[in-house]
Amino acid sequence: MYNINLSQVKEIVGAIVAGKRIENVVFVGCGASKSELYPAKYFLSNTSRSLRVSHYTANEFNFDTPDWLGENTVVISASLGGSTPETVKANAVAKAAKATVISVTHAAGSPLTKDADYSIIHGFEENYGAKLEKMGYVLALAVEILQQVEGYEKYDKMMAGFDKIFELAENSARAAKGAAREFAQQYKDAPVVYVMSSGGSAEVAYSTSICLMMEMQWINSGSFHSGEFFHGPFEIVDKDVPFILLMNDGKTRGIDSRALTFLQRFDALTTVVDAKDYGLSSEISSDVATYFNPLLHTAVFRVYAEELSYVRQHPLSKRRYMWKIEY
Amino acid sequence: MYNINLSQVKEIVGAIVAGKRIENVVFVGCGASKSELYPAKYFLSNTSRSLRVSHYTANEFNFDTPDWLGENTVVISASLGGSTPETVKANAVAKAAKATVISVTHAAGSPLTKDADYSIIHGFEENYGAKLEKMGYVLALAVEILQQVEGYEKYDKMMAGFDKIFELAENSARAAKGAAREFAQQYKDAPVVYVMSSGGSAEVAYSTSICLMMEMQWINSGSFHSGEFFHGPFEIVDKDVPFILLMNDGKTRGIDSRALTFLQRFDALTTVVDAKDYGLSSEISSDVATYFNPLLHTAVFRVYAEELSYVRQHPLSKRRYMWKIEY
Repeated sequence: MYNINLSQVKEIVGAIVAGKRIENVVFVGCGASKSELYPAKYFLSNTSRSLRVSHYTANEFNFDTPDWLGENTVVISASLGGSTPETVKANAVAKAAKATVISVTHAAGSPLTKDADYSIIHGFEENYGAKLEKMGYVLALAVEILQQVEGYEKYDKMMAGFDKIFELAENSARAAKGAAREFAQQYKDAPVVYVMSSGGSAEVAYSTSICLMMEMQWINSGSFHSGEFFHGPFEIVDKDVPFILLMNDGKTRGIDSRALTFLQRFDALTTVVDAKDYGLSSEISSDVATYFNPLLHTAVFRVYAEELSYVRQHPLSKRRYMWKIEY
Repeated sequence: MYNINLSQVKEIVGAIVAGKRIENVVFVGCGASKSELYPAKYFLSNTSRSLRVSHYTANEFNFDTPDWLGENTVVISASLGGSTPETVKANAVAKAAKATVISVTHAAGSPLTKDADYSIIHGFEENYGAKLEKMGYVLALAVEILQQVEGYEKYDKMMAGFDKIFELAENSARAAKGAAREFAQQYKDAPVVYVMSSGGSAEVAYSTSICLMMEMQWINSGSFHSGEFFHGPFEIVDKDVPFILLMNDGKTRGIDSRALTFLQRFDALTTVVDAKDYGLSSEISSDVATYFNPLLHTAVFRVYAEELSYVRQHPLSKRRYMWKIEY
């Protein structure tokens, strides 16, 4: 059965709540990890009636540390390899201010776990579902904090959603191969690719742009919220200009679909990854499905990126600078 | 003397605080206006020990309205022309939930003022300083709310900063003409332009990208926080790849300068607009100067965009779709 260890999440939050009053929840990471914290930040800042919620790229947290950081703060940090220097430093900054630190990483014993009060080790290589575990754990932490601090009426529905989403995402990713190959053929020579989404998936669009396109394929790219499309970016639209739209099956669908209508009207080269096509809101209660979009989009688009890398003969792991030089 | 009407700001906040307890401060807008709200959001979420602070593109606020929106919420919305449909709608959403609405617009009597409890009308055409008034009023509202709700030890320094920044920005913009002309020559044929910054200027980079480049010049563009540069985007760097770095004279300067070192090392085509060159922290107390960077960057880069538009013979007001078709 696909799921993350929800009882571990419950225990960690229970231990924290038993010892202190939580006022602030801060999500800290860099790049892909920063974007994988966003669904939790989105959920918690939308639903909580008492908590103060924020989200930082790690060095901004380090260089301009918020005035209120202190013992009533929980910092949730994430890094796949657990050695991202800025995020490791953020843990130390948080620790020095007496905040409680929960770190989510694939690497047990990594530097990120050093100053963490609690560490969660997630999977990654096993399958597409496993690649979502970091994002899933962080979202589950947010749900559990909300439940234990102030109660959350949709808690059971969210828990049921976690029971479904990893297998759904895995199956969706496998089912996407044909569409992904078509995408790869259409976009392999694109001089620039724009990516947009909304709601909890806004930063899936962001990481698709800065990580999958710019970092891993050296393709020029930009990203923005689909609600911002008509307030600047849409003037770049013309026939064949390449766009990727991660379409939400949830509350912000109307924002995405308005952008799609425009892209189609002017014959932009448009690829849509629509969570509805994969049955998100039929598998998961429509009361909470909106918060699971980013997991589905991440799994499915991973396959698109893989197919693009094959056609372009540019492995996703190929780098010019990262892992090669000091900077 | 250049300044905004700080006594009007004080009166508005005083009237609100006299009638209710403020728990949430929400900044709502679209595109350039959204980005002009960000310096205030950045300031308030960094400094306030009690308020819950959030920032939305208007339709996300409308489609997935936060659960906690209610009478203890102050919504600050902005739109230059006061007729942005999504932002006008956000005012109505806020009003229906009994929130207090303050709208900042250039257009007295515009739809945005209809559901607003308080409206602030700002300048725009007069000069470069006047183009900052929207951003300045919103930042002043944040400072005043903080002061009246919980007290702010650097309040007097911020007020002194407002007395300086508009004239400083105006003079800086005028002094930038030569550098802006050089920029225009170097970037006029750029196939794509990346923009980055950090701190309160992070969304000046964003609006420079989506508005000045994409919307007003139809130049491909992407933007990101300079703290994210080494976590994806930097792999696109190569000789002559065009970047614009809005460098902060304040707490996050070290983040920007690390990115600059890398850009120079690999001979990227780099334009730096450095607030320090224009004397920001010598004119304004270094305790608070960091929060005034976005005003300086906005004024100076406006001149860069103007010069680019002249060389490219593409007026900043030229549009394909906006103001021309229904969408």
